[in-house]
Parts: sequence; C-alpha cells; structure tokens
Amino acid sequence: MVVGLGTGSTAYYAVERVGQKLQSGELKNILCIPTSEKTRQQAESLKIPLITLNERSHLDVAIDGADDVDLHGALIKGGGGALLREKMVEINADKFICIVDESKLSSELGPKFPLPVEITPFCYEHTIRQIESLPSIQKTGSCKPILRRGNVGNNKLDGENIAITDNGNYIVDLYFTSPLSDVRQLSKELYSIVGVVEHGLFIDMTTAIIVAGKDGVRVAGRVKGGERPWWGTSSDRRR
Amino acid sequence: MVVGLGTGSTAYYAVERVGQKLQSGELKNILCIPTSEKTRQQAESLKIPLITLNERSHLDVAIDGADDVDLHGALIKGGGGALLREKMVEINADKFICIVDESKLSSELGPKFPLPVEITPFCYEHTIRQIESLPSIQKTGSCKPILRRGNVGNNKLDGENIAITDNGNYIVDLYFTSPLSDVRQLSKELYSIVGVVEHGLFIDMTTAIIVAGKDGVRVAGRVKGGERPWWGTSSDRRR
Repeated sequence: MVVGLGTGSTAYYAVERVGQKLQSGELKNILCIPTSEKTRQQAESLKIPLITLNERSHLDVAIDGADDVDLHGALIKGGGGALLREKMVEINADKFICIVDESKLSSELGPKFPLPVEITPFCYEHTIRQIESLPSIQKTGSCKPILRRGNVGNNKLDGENIAITDNGNYIVDLYFTSPLSDVRQLSKELYSIVGVVEHGLFIDMTTAIIVAGKDGVRVAGRVKGGERPWWGTSSDRRR
Repeated sequence: MVVGLGTGSTAYYAVERVGQKLQSGELKNILCIPTSEKTRQQAESLKIPLITLNERSHLDVAIDGADDVDLHGALIKGGGGALLREKMVEINADKFICIVDESKLSSELGPKFPLPVEITPFCYEHTIRQIESLPSIQKTGSCKPILRRGNVGNNKLDGENIAITDNGNYIVDLYFTSPLSDVRQLSKELYSIVGVVEHGLFIDMTTAIIVAGKDGVRVAGRVKGGERPWWGTSSDRRR
C-alpha cells in the first residue's frame, strides 16, 4: 500500500501513529510519500519507509489535515505552506482522508481562514494585483492579500522576512470577510494568472472527513448523488 | 509609453533597435519591461530606461519573437526558456507584436517546434508522466517529452546539466510528430496539473505578426470576425 503523509499540526499525530503501528508490527508492507520536507524528516526519524512520486505516481490513500472545510467537503489548505506538494500527492490518491477538529467546519469557505496562493517571486506585487482584480475576488468585495512572512518548514527567508516554500516560491494569503460563493470559478480564475503556481482550494478531492468534537469522533463522507451535504443537516443543501 | 521587450534571437535585434532609436533621439519618453534576465542585461547595456511589472502592470505594447506560429496567430514560445516572464509581460500589453521569419509559420502547431512546459523541480518525473497521460496529449499519439538540459540565459545548471529557468524551475519540451488539433483544450489540461507552472502556448494574445520573407516584410493581423486566417489564404479557414 502506498500512503501519502500530510503536513501540519493534525497530520503530525497521524504520522506519529503510522510510525508506532509500523514499529509494533500492527502495520506492514506500506510505503509512504511525504508532502513536505518537514514531514519527510519526521517520517525518517520514525523509520517509516519512504518513496516519492517519482517512483510511484499512484497512491492508495492519503491522510492530511485542513484549515477550513465547507459543507460539500471542499477544503482550504496551506496554512503550513505545503499546499503544492500536498495537492500533488493527494490528487493522485484513490482515497483522501481529511482529519480535522470541529472548529474547522464552516458553512462556506472564506471568512474563517485565509486562502493561500503560491506565486513565483518574480514581480510578486504585480501578481498580487492581478489576483485582486479577478472577477470572483472583486465579487466578494472583501479581499485583503498579505504576503506571507516567517518560516515555512525549515526553509530560509527571503529579503524582508518573506516566507519561501519548499519549491522556492512565495505565498500570498487572501483574507476575506465574506464567504466565497463559487470556489470552482475562483479556482479556474486563479489558475489563469501567469505567476500563480498553485492555490489552497482542494475541491472534489476528499473521500471522507474525520471530525473530532466534544462528543467524540464522527466520519462524514460523500453522499450518493450529492443530495445531502457532507456534514451538515438535510436543510444545508447544495445551492 | 510602456514597452515590453522580448527574449531570443529575433527579439535581440528589436531591443538593439530600440536602444539605437533612443540614443538618436528618434524615440523618447518610453519605459521598457524586459522579459528575462538576459534581455534586462542587454537593455541595461544600451541604456534603455527599465521598470518592472511591479511598478506598472499595464503595457502599451510588447514586441517579441516566436518559435512557431499557426494560421490563427497562436504561438509556441519558450525555446529560449523565458516563457513565464514573456507571458506575464505580454498578456498585459494592449498590443502584442510578434516578429518572425517565414520559416516559423505552420498550418498547425506541434510538429515543427517542441512545446516547452515549465514545471516545478520537485518530483519532475512524476509531473512529466502526468503530462503524458493528458487526454489531449494521448490523442496526438506522438508525444515525446524531453527534460531540457544546458543553460537557460546565464542561469546555473542543476545536477545532470538540467536547465533552470529564471524562476528556479525545470522545462520539459514536448516533441510531437503530429499536429496539435485543439490548443485551447491542451492549454486547459496542462494548467490542471499540479506542478505545471506555465506552458509555451500563447493563444489569442497576438495583435499583429510581422513576417520577414524572401519577398520582403509583410504584416498579418487579426481579421474582423475571424473569417480569414491571419496569414494564410482564404481557403485556410478556421475549422
């Protein structure tokens, strides 16, 4: 089995557990693909057998956290700065299992957690202006883009403390005060900008979401025909 | 006037000429935006006043060469490795003037010149496999992807002489023996791959194409309503 290992504070515990289960012999014959340098180092220290997408493009399952989850299982990821590698790995997994605590659930994405967009450093101010002028962004009437500063993983910083991703790019975090009404359209528009390398919207990728709450753990999954939303009540229908 | 300066063997002469006309006083009050480190160095040596997209996101005109031009004015660019910055600049120009010699004209893109795709170095072998498996690529039945080696501009090389772009990425050149029947669709599919940063298809961007041939220079421009192709005869209608 080939397993993708996520990045971030929640995925950290999942990786730890995989290491323990391998050591105890409860888990056997798995190869793991880490989604960041940080996770690679953690997994190595736990003696988890690692490969990369170069050796195997297809994964059986990937496990990762998320920063924001909407009623339809769409995610915002990239708070930890690993969005590109995470998406690269998780988009190629048969099953993508997302683990979050209850506080990450939102009726719509946007206001709770900023949307990270990975951009090429060259003329990043121009690229940020192009992002701001997108129709989907204009429509929200409330986007504040902030270039990320401080370390991503163990990477060096660029001038003025600008964060550098594992791929040598910058991240701009888009802060919204109103909800993103059409994440599919926003995704398309973001990809149309020359200089945008990847963004943190993970749409139609999750197989199941494991939600930890006060009353224990529950699993929300894709509902046949999309009639019922992932984790909402029956009144929260897809618009 | 803000003018974009292209990169490559043809653009080189255009940049030289801009420098001469500035020095002679024939040209005044222009600011130029170079599309590569190489062009920036050339323009600086000619004392051409330079700015970047950070200062001005909007250009009046951009001038550049191309590696392959089809009947509808779609281009393949990136033989010189500057595709990302070229597209970033030229997509924001009111007028984009393309200069080529007659040998660059093709009825369809594909067989004449390989299509360059800029990809993130991380797991590039995986990314190349994803590109190969795209429906549009499969349909051609003839794609041979080759990772570019040797210098791009004055950039350093990576291990095994792998070329590195001005943006720190790799380039894979897609060699086709049969024509690309739907470049718009191929463009969309390429952008859908996580790890693809940009590609060398420049579609619906050119305002005019200046073609140098045995019989002198002619200008091909957009024809109202798209009835007549750019530079073909009236029998070469858009499919």
